[in-house]
Amino acid sequence: MVPHLVTALTGPINELEQRILESMPVIERWFRLEWMEHTPPFYTSVDIRNAGFKLAPVETRLHPDGWDHLAPEMLPLAVQAAMAAIEKICPEAKNLLLVPRSTEDRCYLSNLAQLRRIFYQAGLNVRIGSLSNQIKAPTTIELPDGASVTLEPLIRNKRRLGLKNFDPCTIVLNNDLSAGVPGILEELHEQYLLPPLHASWSTRRKSRHSKAYEEVAKRFGKLLGMDHWLIAPLFAACGAIDGSSPPGLDALRNHADVLLAKIRRKYKEYGINEKPFVRIKSDRGSGGVLLRDAKEIDRLAPALLARLGTEPGALAVPEILLQEGVPTCERINAAHAEPVVYLMDRYVVGGLYRVHAEHDADHSARAPGAGFVPLAFEHSAQLPQPGIKPGASVPNRFYMYGVIGRLAMLAASYELEASDPDAEHYD
Amino acid sequence: MVPHLVTALTGPINELEQRILESMPVIERWFRLEWMEHTPPFYTSVDIRNAGFKLAPVETRLHPDGWDHLAPEMLPLAVQAAMAAIEKICPEAKNLLLVPRSTEDRCYLSNLAQLRRIFYQAGLNVRIGSLSNQIKAPTTIELPDGASVTLEPLIRNKRRLGLKNFDPCTIVLNNDLSAGVPGILEELHEQYLLPPLHASWSTRRKSRHSKAYEEVAKRFGKLLGMDHWLIAPLFAACGAIDGSSPPGLDALRNHADVLLAKIRRKYKEYGINEKPFVRIKSDRGSGGVLLRDAKEIDRLAPALLARLGTEPGALAVPEILLQEGVPTCERINAAHAEPVVYLMDRYVVGGLYRVHAEHDADHSARAPGAGFVPLAFEHSAQLPQPGIKPGASVPNRFYMYGVIGRLAMLAASYELEASDPDAEHYD
Repeated sequence: MVPHLVTALTGPINELEQRILESMPVIERWFRLEWMEHTPPFYTSVDIRNAGFKLAPVETRLHPDGWDHLAPEMLPLAVQAAMAAIEKICPEAKNLLLVPRSTEDRCYLSNLAQLRRIFYQAGLNVRIGSLSNQIKAPTTIELPDGASVTLEPLIRNKRRLGLKNFDPCTIVLNNDLSAGVPGILEELHEQYLLPPLHASWSTRRKSRHSKAYEEVAKRFGKLLGMDHWLIAPLFAACGAIDGSSPPGLDALRNHADVLLAKIRRKYKEYGINEKPFVRIKSDRGSGGVLLRDAKEIDRLAPALLARLGTEPGALAVPEILLQEGVPTCERINAAHAEPVVYLMDRYVVGGLYRVHAEHDADHSARAPGAGFVPLAFEHSAQLPQPGIKPGASVPNRFYMYGVIGRLAMLAASYELEASDPDAEHYD
Repeated sequence: MVPHLVTALTGPINELEQRILESMPVIERWFRLEWMEHTPPFYTSVDIRNAGFKLAPVETRLHPDGWDHLAPEMLPLAVQAAMAAIEKICPEAKNLLLVPRSTEDRCYLSNLAQLRRIFYQAGLNVRIGSLSNQIKAPTTIELPDGASVTLEPLIRNKRRLGLKNFDPCTIVLNNDLSAGVPGILEELHEQYLLPPLHASWSTRRKSRHSKAYEEVAKRFGKLLGMDHWLIAPLFAACGAIDGSSPPGLDALRNHADVLLAKIRRKYKEYGINEKPFVRIKSDRGSGGVLLRDAKEIDRLAPALLARLGTEPGALAVPEILLQEGVPTCERINAAHAEPVVYLMDRYVVGGLYRVHAEHDADHSARAPGAGFVPLAFEHSAQLPQPGIKPGASVPNRFYMYGVIGRLAMLAASYELEASDPDAEHYD
């Protein structure tokens, strides 16, 4: 079932939809050529905001969870894409080790059960190895749907990581390692670690991703003859900022002022009658604070530090990214609906709406208490219907989301290439 | 909707299902390794017969039609597989030319519209060029579902084939060329012709395919530790036989006697209480006659010649293949249901049942008047459910069908390699 969506689509985004639909063969060819040169991340989810006047990714995750919320009809697509990915990376693969986050959250464990299903159905023996010290013997946890998940203690020898009687050739991380890279995952040169360690938050920076996405969006904008701002959030990388000191707050206030002014100019250019806002985010990992006015910085500073500093492994002086806030115009009944696109290898394999009941369009739906509604990409993100009035077709919107999701994934691929410690750079 | 199937599954096939399910990671890995060495045909459909005691392919088509009968939910899988195929063969592709059979049959044209949809959604500009002399200008034909198909005259220059203002880099044949290869398709060295000309019936021989399939089935049987007869029809390649002469009929009778005796021995070995039969088929192209007893040959000869000799381009003295008849035990209500598996590149993308109302289990469902029921691979052929009682799970049976379909496709890939005029052979 596709949730009933109330979407206030206005001018520019309809034009964008139309242009994207008309250019479909051009776009698909462009992606094909990009993937000749670049390797897609193993799997990705992309949070998208549809503001009506603008459609942009706001977060690109390389260790996505929530796979259990995808519509069941889409599972075969994920399996087929996983087959393609495995075949490319390690065709002789037999055993796959899944390394999850250390949590007993049942929702997360259902996600894990779904990932195990996908890789099993792609033809691999799958077992789950826990990084947690609590897991000293195989531990089976029953799930609400009747399935169960068995967590086993990891066993590391000099060269390989595995479980008791289980030697995997491929290790899939479903843990973004925001608390740092545990030694047990380092120096694994004989096994495929997917995604690689430098895709975790110990290496990744949102500012690098934003920069890479800006580059991708510019090229894509040129391809389609449109302003790339319509698909890319403005941002400012502020570096390490000590929010407890007046000079730190001054610097942050200046960055925010400049960014808000840039957004205001764009709003004016497009006749958008909205109040600009930005998000203050940690440059590595999750968490973020909304800011409508640079003057609010002083009042926000303690909350900001609390939000950015609570992650395990967070820096004493956090690195800060300011990102243009993109409001959400999609609603399911009275709740905000924020689309998330799921990708496996280079393929869009599904999507869901994160639904948040609060009536504040600026609120992040990833807050605790956010509900999930599986977004049944009923005709999949790959089945646009040409000839239908812009804004009126759900499959067409899903196709557009799939394109934006792939642009963000491509940016992640650029980002990973640039941060790959094993790469040879010719700059 | 999955059609309600009445299937009398007895001993051996349940064992086979169980063994195939248990061996899933082994099987998938085996296919992955095979596809490292061999190139799958561009697209394939495989007719399968489920006899209850035996499950085997009886026909492998390399220019499949009937795509419009697949369940709509499976379309995204076909699109994703087509993307993978195009990406591998010609990532820079922009324009794709579809060359169909010359027929105004609306069912076939609906199939064409569906193929056009799949390739368009995979990101290509698709147009249709007709081999028919009747098509002298673009001709649009309306279809019952409201869609339409435009056939355009082909334009050939010295090096390339195209349409007016349309220069394709890829040409997809949906025509098995059983009437011979038209000159307009020859010597196209600058464009990708998919499948290649030697995949058409002017080069293909069923006997070669049967031989290749036997080899594949043997290796697969060894992998799973089972008798490959359970998945492979016995056959005899008789060569050119003049059915109008007594020596020709004698030879055919002898071949039939030997083959029937072989089947009888196998039936005895497995305690199968059925009367063996064989099919007399043209070694190239379609058509076939049922034979229960070698003595019937004299009576059948004229009918046989009529059936094998009516194809345009048929030889005066047809080459004959005898194939073990595999009865059908699947029924939808009182009608026989014969599964057909569809593959794009290396992926199973759907399937359907050909349904025939006649109560004769031996009858070929491909006779005129055969109905089609889309076989909604509800959980797709890639989603088996381990732990379910053999014979009781539709997804598990579909997975098994998908495996047999891929074995036949692999055999076609061997066959095409062996008959490739451009290949370098090191025998």
